[in-house]
Amino acid sequence: MYPTPDEKVYIDAAEKLMIETMARYDPSHDVYHVQRVRKTALALAKAAPSQPDLLTVELAALLHDVLDKKYVTPEQAANPYTFYLPLFSAAAEKSAINIIKDGRARQIAQIVDNVSWTTEKKLRAKGEWSKWHEECLELHCVQDADRLDAIGAFGVLRCAAFTASKNNALHVPAGDPALEVSAMQHFEDKLIHIKDRLKTQPGKELGEKRHKLLLDFMQSIEDEFTVAL
Amino acid sequence: MYPTPDEKVYIDAAEKLMIETMARYDPSHDVYHVQRVRKTALALAKAAPSQPDLLTVELAALLHDVLDKKYVTPEQAANPYTFYLPLFSAAAEKSAINIIKDGRARQIAQIVDNVSWTTEKKLRAKGEWSKWHEECLELHCVQDADRLDAIGAFGVLRCAAFTASKNNALHVPAGDPALEVSAMQHFEDKLIHIKDRLKTQPGKELGEKRHKLLLDFMQSIEDEFTVAL
Repeated sequence: MYPTPDEKVYIDAAEKLMIETMARYDPSHDVYHVQRVRKTALALAKAAPSQPDLLTVELAALLHDVLDKKYVTPEQAANPYTFYLPLFSAAAEKSAINIIKDGRARQIAQIVDNVSWTTEKKLRAKGEWSKWHEECLELHCVQDADRLDAIGAFGVLRCAAFTASKNNALHVPAGDPALEVSAMQHFEDKLIHIKDRLKTQPGKELGEKRHKLLLDFMQSIEDEFTVAL
Repeated sequence: MYPTPDEKVYIDAAEKLMIETMARYDPSHDVYHVQRVRKTALALAKAAPSQPDLLTVELAALLHDVLDKKYVTPEQAANPYTFYLPLFSAAAEKSAINIIKDGRARQIAQIVDNVSWTTEKKLRAKGEWSKWHEECLELHCVQDADRLDAIGAFGVLRCAAFTASKNNALHVPAGDPALEVSAMQHFEDKLIHIKDRLKTQPGKELGEKRHKLLLDFMQSIEDEFTVAL
């Protein structure tokens, strides 16, 4: 039965680091976001026809935003494996499992480094989207969970919150120079395209529903803005 | 035909002050919010069976958040009439209309001072909600317009943005101490009650639709949070 006490040693250590780190970020990328991604990623993993490694999924989900490039320097984010090694080493001393030796630590670091939408886009553009990216079920569960939290109702709240944390506008009339960085433009530029990059079957099903909410929401903004009486 | 060039002198002066002031506030209370309130307030006024004074409505809408108690000290907000008098005096010198002499300046200051939900709640609790509050159509148009922008799709974006500007969480699981100041709790505490305090007939009709959006949105948050696969 997952998680065993030996697995829990790693989970607790990762959760502690995540909570400490995310407290410094804005409410669009907070502890609650990561806890939702963790829960969704595990649900997707458990629903998968061939079972991914749950400890890998949970640890990657917990750690996926600790080195988010929006909040740390490129230098800090450059090598997740080196960054997380002390955490995994310390946990290995208190656990009968050693994820450094069995290779899962490296896998987790690689997932963390490849979760983001921007990274996927860049790698695909450079022709560097590999067989591993196509086949790693653990990556797919964490990616889908993270992306699902960026669309739908939570996506709407988080996009508005991130926009506000940058002091950009929420909605801007056509022709205004502030349009480019507004929350609603981010819906157009990124969020409505996320559905097509979901990878697991249950993720795609949840994605359809959340994508529809986004489109309806955008239509409501237009309707409200025109004040049709 | 509204606005005449003499009325436009006041409108331009008020808009200029509003733009300068709102640039200091967060994106939940920015120039775009005020421009939407202005547009909606005028639409409600024009749709009213007995015509409110459009200049009073537009000036009150433009100035309604300049002294918002969330952004200025109680001392600064204490006397809107005194605060706005230099603005109105300067405009009166360039216009054939004198809204200080004809009493509209005082009316506008009184509306600005009474738009807010919190003020209405306090006055009602103290039994100080007066005949003027009940009957002033210009107040009702600005109040409804401001409240309509707090519910519906814009309300959702603005609530998330204001929450983020205070660095509070968007959604918090039951039992977490951060729940009280979360965006979703603000939906519960305030936003879902706004519909019942709309005063104009077209405002109530727009309110029904925006209120339904809020309720559907809250349900979607619950559904997404439970990750029902």
